[in-house]
Amino acid sequence: MPKIVAAESHLFELPLPEKMGDAKHGLHEHFELPIIRLTTDNGLEGVGYTYTGGVGGRAILAHLKHDLTPMLLGMETQDIQGLFEAMYWKTHYVGRGGAAGFAISAVDIALWDLKGKSEGRSLVQLAGGNSKTTRAYAGGIDLNFSTEKLLSNVKGYLDRGFEAVKIKVGRPDLAEDTARVAAIRTLIGPDRALMVDANYGFSRDEAKAASDAFAPYDVLWFEEPIDPEDIEGYAWLAEKTSIPLAQGENLHSANEFRQVIKNANVTYIQPDASNCGGISGWLEVALMAKKAGLTVCSHGMQELHVSLMSSQAHAGWMEVHSFPIEAYTKRQIHLENGLAVAPDEPGIGVEFIWEKLAPFEVH
Amino acid sequence: MPKIVAAESHLFELPLPEKMGDAKHGLHEHFELPIIRLTTDNGLEGVGYTYTGGVGGRAILAHLKHDLTPMLLGMETQDIQGLFEAMYWKTHYVGRGGAAGFAISAVDIALWDLKGKSEGRSLVQLAGGNSKTTRAYAGGIDLNFSTEKLLSNVKGYLDRGFEAVKIKVGRPDLAEDTARVAAIRTLIGPDRALMVDANYGFSRDEAKAASDAFAPYDVLWFEEPIDPEDIEGYAWLAEKTSIPLAQGENLHSANEFRQVIKNANVTYIQPDASNCGGISGWLEVALMAKKAGLTVCSHGMQELHVSLMSSQAHAGWMEVHSFPIEAYTKRQIHLENGLAVAPDEPGIGVEFIWEKLAPFEVH
Repeated sequence: MPKIVAAESHLFELPLPEKMGDAKHGLHEHFELPIIRLTTDNGLEGVGYTYTGGVGGRAILAHLKHDLTPMLLGMETQDIQGLFEAMYWKTHYVGRGGAAGFAISAVDIALWDLKGKSEGRSLVQLAGGNSKTTRAYAGGIDLNFSTEKLLSNVKGYLDRGFEAVKIKVGRPDLAEDTARVAAIRTLIGPDRALMVDANYGFSRDEAKAASDAFAPYDVLWFEEPIDPEDIEGYAWLAEKTSIPLAQGENLHSANEFRQVIKNANVTYIQPDASNCGGISGWLEVALMAKKAGLTVCSHGMQELHVSLMSSQAHAGWMEVHSFPIEAYTKRQIHLENGLAVAPDEPGIGVEFIWEKLAPFEVH
Repeated sequence: MPKIVAAESHLFELPLPEKMGDAKHGLHEHFELPIIRLTTDNGLEGVGYTYTGGVGGRAILAHLKHDLTPMLLGMETQDIQGLFEAMYWKTHYVGRGGAAGFAISAVDIALWDLKGKSEGRSLVQLAGGNSKTTRAYAGGIDLNFSTEKLLSNVKGYLDRGFEAVKIKVGRPDLAEDTARVAAIRTLIGPDRALMVDANYGFSRDEAKAASDAFAPYDVLWFEEPIDPEDIEGYAWLAEKTSIPLAQGENLHSANEFRQVIKNANVTYIQPDASNCGGISGWLEVALMAKKAGLTVCSHGMQELHVSLMSSQAHAGWMEVHSFPIEAYTKRQIHLENGLAVAPDEPGIGVEFIWEKLAPFEVH
């Protein structure tokens, strides 16, 4: 049984091409990429990672270095579930939902990478999938863009072959949001999918009014209309409005997903392997969604989720996020007939270009 | 309006007098004490802190230094609620329930310290309290103690004047736990209060069996019998057993407390200001408990909770925890007729002895 003999953690603070804004997080100028490299005594290296919108990266790095690495060294890598639980309970008191969950996610992804490399299987295969492609949409952090810029940005998605797009909503005036949604629908035509995302910037009543205003424009889902923890609010909104609801990026534990899947009446559930327990966590949520008859989607890190989404028969649309992690990896997402294609390589299929990352390392 | 001109964060790793164990966290050899000192432009210093059982201190320190300090510098200190919300939303994505919540708690406590010092009022007064005392119990992390040692430890509590004691349960064999509970009841006599704490080491069925076995020994509450997130399990257990249920130390956000207070059918709710949003968070939970007809208690950091507990008419018993934070402060808890007495000093009434802490600082 291979054992972990070294664990090396790094944090990179990566610039964004321009300032990007949404309804609740303000302007982003950079994003953070914590990475852990696990080496085993049979000479394999597993790489796992997570990301943030610019806050908390150092705390994640601290959890990786000081709380998780000491317990990982010397451990066998085969029993991913056992290691996951050991990490979960070790950090439980300071953990659930917070930076520790991101750190555990990174380690879990590295363990799956090791598993795939050791067995010579791709992540699609490890996850039990048959398909190698998944529907995908492009989504920008574009709330601060002028309508003109928003339209040219979305035009860029269409030029790249996307058949589905998502825009942010939550401008000061609902009429503005509605005009933007209408303009995008006109631009993309009647057949492409359009989603909107409020990053929980609305109150319940505002969300209801917004949903009513957007309804004529055939919106596939309304993402995070309100506070992700307001489960009763989601159920209330789902009863009162016609646009299906979506959320998941701010649910970071199996228990949170269980509560939302059971009680929030959402149609699309959007786990992010970088913060919900890695690949183990994402697959657990996908299974919960399947049992409940919901459609599983994803948030961020498309270079990894492309494999997970492709592996699931009940997958919806994968988000292609505007944090450019792919700019630092050897492989980029490409579309075939509007579908994103998963990698074949053994392991997670994400290989970082370390020389490109190096200038941005936080020491 | 006074503004924050400096923020200095420290982490101390403090030894425990001996190895201590409970059902779920293994053996503790030390605990961690992150502290933040805020200085204002009118020359006041506010000190806030949190603690952990030995995991996550560096992540908390990272949140304090890198995520919270930059936003605090230059801010006015009066609007504690506004600052609390700003910190909460800034760290939300990587925050809720995790290390960021501990960091926010420390800052919040420092802001209340500044408020008290600035207004010349004690924490009891700031919290709107009339009483200066609160019922208190001593509780040890004593699951690994032999029965003989357990009894002599509890005898020590009685010698110090405690009228209520708590022991850990969750030994491999329920008969052992029951014998220990019986022995303690015999030792303390029929009139003192006895609580038990499983640190969520039991399954639902095990907890039911344990509660039935302990019932003859007049147990005041059964603390964390099962996973704190298994709200339905608590409600199930409360229906099936006679010992009132208690939990709270592992609930770290207002939303978690709201769900448990509403649906878990617990009798005692035990927020800890060090991890549920500081003094602001603790008082919010106390108010929720009051409205729901529950008794509010506390977990850990008795040197601070003595003031909060004394301020609340619906307070139950304050835990006097065996992490000796008090060994590094100028004032120690003392009992009068079995009641713990709150300090009179302006501010939170907790002054650290920096020279005593210095040798244990983590650099």
